[in-house]
Amino acid sequence: MAEHWIDSGIIPPDDGERVIGGMIDNYAENREPRMLHPEWLQAAEEKLAALEEKTGRKPNFLIFILDDVGWGDFGCFGGGHLRGAPTPNFDRLAAEGLRLTSCYSQPSCSPSRATIMTGRLPIRHGILTPPMYGQPGGLQDEVTLPELLKQAGYATRAVGKWHCGENAESVPQNKGFDEFYGFYGVSDMYTEWRDNYFYPEIVNDPFIFQAVMKMQFNKHNILAKPGQFDVPEIEQEEIDLDTVKDLDEKWAAYSEKFIRDMADSDQPWLLYHGTRGCHFDNYPPDNFKGKSRAKYPFHDVLVEMDDIFGRLFRALEETGQLENTLILVTSDNGPEMESWPDSSYTPFRGSKGTTWEGGIRVPGIFYWKGMIEGGRVSDGLFDFSDLMPTFCAMAGVEDLPQDRYIDGVDQRGFLLASIVAEGTYWAADPAWSSNRVAVYAWLLDKFSGIRVGPYKLYSVTTEMDYRDTVNTGGFSGHTVEYTYGKLFNLFLDPKEDHSFAIRKLVTLPIMSAISAQHRKTFEKYPPRIQVKGAQSG
Amino acid sequence: MAEHWIDSGIIPPDDGERVIGGMIDNYAENREPRMLHPEWLQAAEEKLAALEEKTGRKPNFLIFILDDVGWGDFGCFGGGHLRGAPTPNFDRLAAEGLRLTSCYSQPSCSPSRATIMTGRLPIRHGILTPPMYGQPGGLQDEVTLPELLKQAGYATRAVGKWHCGENAESVPQNKGFDEFYGFYGVSDMYTEWRDNYFYPEIVNDPFIFQAVMKMQFNKHNILAKPGQFDVPEIEQEEIDLDTVKDLDEKWAAYSEKFIRDMADSDQPWLLYHGTRGCHFDNYPPDNFKGKSRAKYPFHDVLVEMDDIFGRLFRALEETGQLENTLILVTSDNGPEMESWPDSSYTPFRGSKGTTWEGGIRVPGIFYWKGMIEGGRVSDGLFDFSDLMPTFCAMAGVEDLPQDRYIDGVDQRGFLLASIVAEGTYWAADPAWSSNRVAVYAWLLDKFSGIRVGPYKLYSVTTEMDYRDTVNTGGFSGHTVEYTYGKLFNLFLDPKEDHSFAIRKLVTLPIMSAISAQHRKTFEKYPPRIQVKGAQSG
Repeated sequence: MAEHWIDSGIIPPDDGERVIGGMIDNYAENREPRMLHPEWLQAAEEKLAALEEKTGRKPNFLIFILDDVGWGDFGCFGGGHLRGAPTPNFDRLAAEGLRLTSCYSQPSCSPSRATIMTGRLPIRHGILTPPMYGQPGGLQDEVTLPELLKQAGYATRAVGKWHCGENAESVPQNKGFDEFYGFYGVSDMYTEWRDNYFYPEIVNDPFIFQAVMKMQFNKHNILAKPGQFDVPEIEQEEIDLDTVKDLDEKWAAYSEKFIRDMADSDQPWLLYHGTRGCHFDNYPPDNFKGKSRAKYPFHDVLVEMDDIFGRLFRALEETGQLENTLILVTSDNGPEMESWPDSSYTPFRGSKGTTWEGGIRVPGIFYWKGMIEGGRVSDGLFDFSDLMPTFCAMAGVEDLPQDRYIDGVDQRGFLLASIVAEGTYWAADPAWSSNRVAVYAWLLDKFSGIRVGPYKLYSVTTEMDYRDTVNTGGFSGHTVEYTYGKLFNLFLDPKEDHSFAIRKLVTLPIMSAISAQHRKTFEKYPPRIQVKGAQSG
Repeated sequence: MAEHWIDSGIIPPDDGERVIGGMIDNYAENREPRMLHPEWLQAAEEKLAALEEKTGRKPNFLIFILDDVGWGDFGCFGGGHLRGAPTPNFDRLAAEGLRLTSCYSQPSCSPSRATIMTGRLPIRHGILTPPMYGQPGGLQDEVTLPELLKQAGYATRAVGKWHCGENAESVPQNKGFDEFYGFYGVSDMYTEWRDNYFYPEIVNDPFIFQAVMKMQFNKHNILAKPGQFDVPEIEQEEIDLDTVKDLDEKWAAYSEKFIRDMADSDQPWLLYHGTRGCHFDNYPPDNFKGKSRAKYPFHDVLVEMDDIFGRLFRALEETGQLENTLILVTSDNGPEMESWPDSSYTPFRGSKGTTWEGGIRVPGIFYWKGMIEGGRVSDGLFDFSDLMPTFCAMAGVEDLPQDRYIDGVDQRGFLLASIVAEGTYWAADPAWSSNRVAVYAWLLDKFSGIRVGPYKLYSVTTEMDYRDTVNTGGFSGHTVEYTYGKLFNLFLDPKEDHSFAIRKLVTLPIMSAISAQHRKTFEKYPPRIQVKGAQSG
């Protein structure tokens, strides 16, 4: 059970009903309460019905998820040229789609990805840290998004990075994907014991090297269909310092071919494309080496990622599938600063591994031609857990699991309705501007904080050692429990510098009440911890 | 003379000629060396000639300068919705114009504004801090942009905040503007001894209050023509807690009328519009109160500023003047954090008053329909001093002053040429991508640092007291001289966290050589200090 809660000090424990009773929609015991906004939902359902009537089928989904790319890296989020790495394809997607300024991941890779797959927070699916070097644990007991979509007739593909477990019951081809082309783990797992430049103390240490050889983990780029697990039949090539460079290009070609092949199919599809870039260590392929202005590997690879996305977008465009495909571009967590300068960028406090905004606030761009208003920007809350219920609702999958808690909410109304009132551009989206009430931030198995509206309240988080600079890797900090709590207003203070809880005490019973609802769910649906340890991912 | 130079420790003093001889264009003793890029210049001159042939006249200039608005506030720079204050008009301008990610001001208001007016750094024009409460000193000895443009037949207007001296010889109507409508100082100079809510210890202290009454400074909104200085004939209204709210609306109406009136004139014009917003203390007018999502005064006023700019833009559009008007939107310095939460936002280190990027890197958007490529973004260096020589060159003013040093360079080539090669979007602009070789950062009368390409090298800068948070107001820090220097690569490290001079020593002789050229200019053209003191502005 979670050890720390926002229920001490200046933050009074409060009864949800007393404070927020009737204000939010508690529609099912095992479902996250939501802001219903019935008029948005109706508008969204009408749009979806009209599209289905026109196409005769359900929509496709493309999830394009980058690795360790921060909130600030894309040009449309203030990066791009600032970083010496322009991202014109991502920027155009944002300009013609919906740019989310408050899209939330988990603090590291595997927890984030498993949350996308399950619609559940890490404290429920149990993957609190990335399983490394064959460490057991994964999605074996979970119900996944592709499994649910398959019930509705979807073709499903997972391409690129998986990192949600590499036991037979957890690999993508056995968790709902018709085919998987990629690797099971994370980029540095294949190179940090090979690269004599970056890791000479590992490569040249016979004892460590022997341990690496002894550990059972798959070191290959894999092509596998359901039921297939045995090596070497699924292994395409071993990943080494030569082959690692071209993985993203190969995966891009696979995904592009899939998109083009599906143009003439009546079957709707899910393509989950997880890139290798821009996780350390970055090795740009020859044709992108030095192509960024910054000239560093991270930057060259970010330019490559933008180019790859552009290829997939054009494939959709050229095959006439844009109108029937919902696209999401995002990243799995904030910058890993311990590998700097092979690192991404966030303007916010903290980095990967922390629950500060720098760790969990990530770029989020939704695009759907004719369905999502172009040029829209919203600060409405969106959590990775929302993808599963939202996509399932769009695909007509009604029967989400009843035997477990689903943390995601259906965000169809938020994404698809035209909710920017004419003539009031400055107000943009109204307050409480998505279907999500709050984002819950967990630091491993400790409840860390909660965001509601512009407020973020922490009880437990990460501080760095006094000898570290502010941007040292978040994995090397220490956990602190605030004596009374810290409260930030992110509109006034995006960098979380000035706590001013004492002048905003009225917000605390509200946040406490919402937290209390969240806590209550663990009574019937206890927390689960299966993977927890030192991290890469 | 400047006391500190980059010529100690690991940074070798070096002879400019030995390192960069022949690499940059030293075309006149009293002019800042430049990157000539002759092909850009030719393209720019051809474009300008074609336009003049079509219109029969020189172009108009609109400088729209905000007060204390940080690099990160506009949506197009990553702010907007993030801050609970969308800026659709500024964002559209950037989307259809040129967004500069490396536009540099001075650390505070008056130094920045005097640099715009003169094309010279503060250490030359002598206004190192804002003249407060009638403090003597100003532009009396300088040659100004409007004076030069008048020689070429321009109609000139200064509207809003001046703050370049309020002695008779320095006020705008006597320094080249045909008419001035605004105030001489800075917003808080008129309210901080009136506002019993924010400043009760001043308002209620008879001794301080008596001193305020004793000090000779103009407390009015003024409308004046050349030669006019005597009160009360120029005074329109006294600025108090009621009238301060509506100043920006009145100034906007004045500027809009001027733009519309000039539509049928054959005379080219310069409109210098300096807003009151968003300098502390912000008092939004009634029709903007609560109109931002953040609901705070700063945010409401930023929304108002965006709306006001939209009105001026529409006036240009509706009167058919967009094709013949170069527009610049910018701000005079980074966020003042001592007045937080009545503060702007920068993702960078430091704030107003410092030479860290947070203090002097400001939003910069150029727009010129048909003349500047739409949607362009550049990290090319642009310094406020460049405006005077660039605008003069566009206006056909050849005779810049010969008896003094001009720090600005002619950036026509950079702004107007089409320099993004087809098919190489990722490289965007080439290296050394403007006509400016370096930005020199001065901290009052001390040489603080230099930016060249992505590198920024500091010898002297501001550190905060250990009890202060990172974002405490930059005016309250202490000056430190680094033992050896600090070097940041801004592409890798926009937040200036990781100095790594020791791994980039090759850059140091280059930066030292450029610094040496800069230093040499002070032998013939000695530094000047006329206004230096504690600051607001």
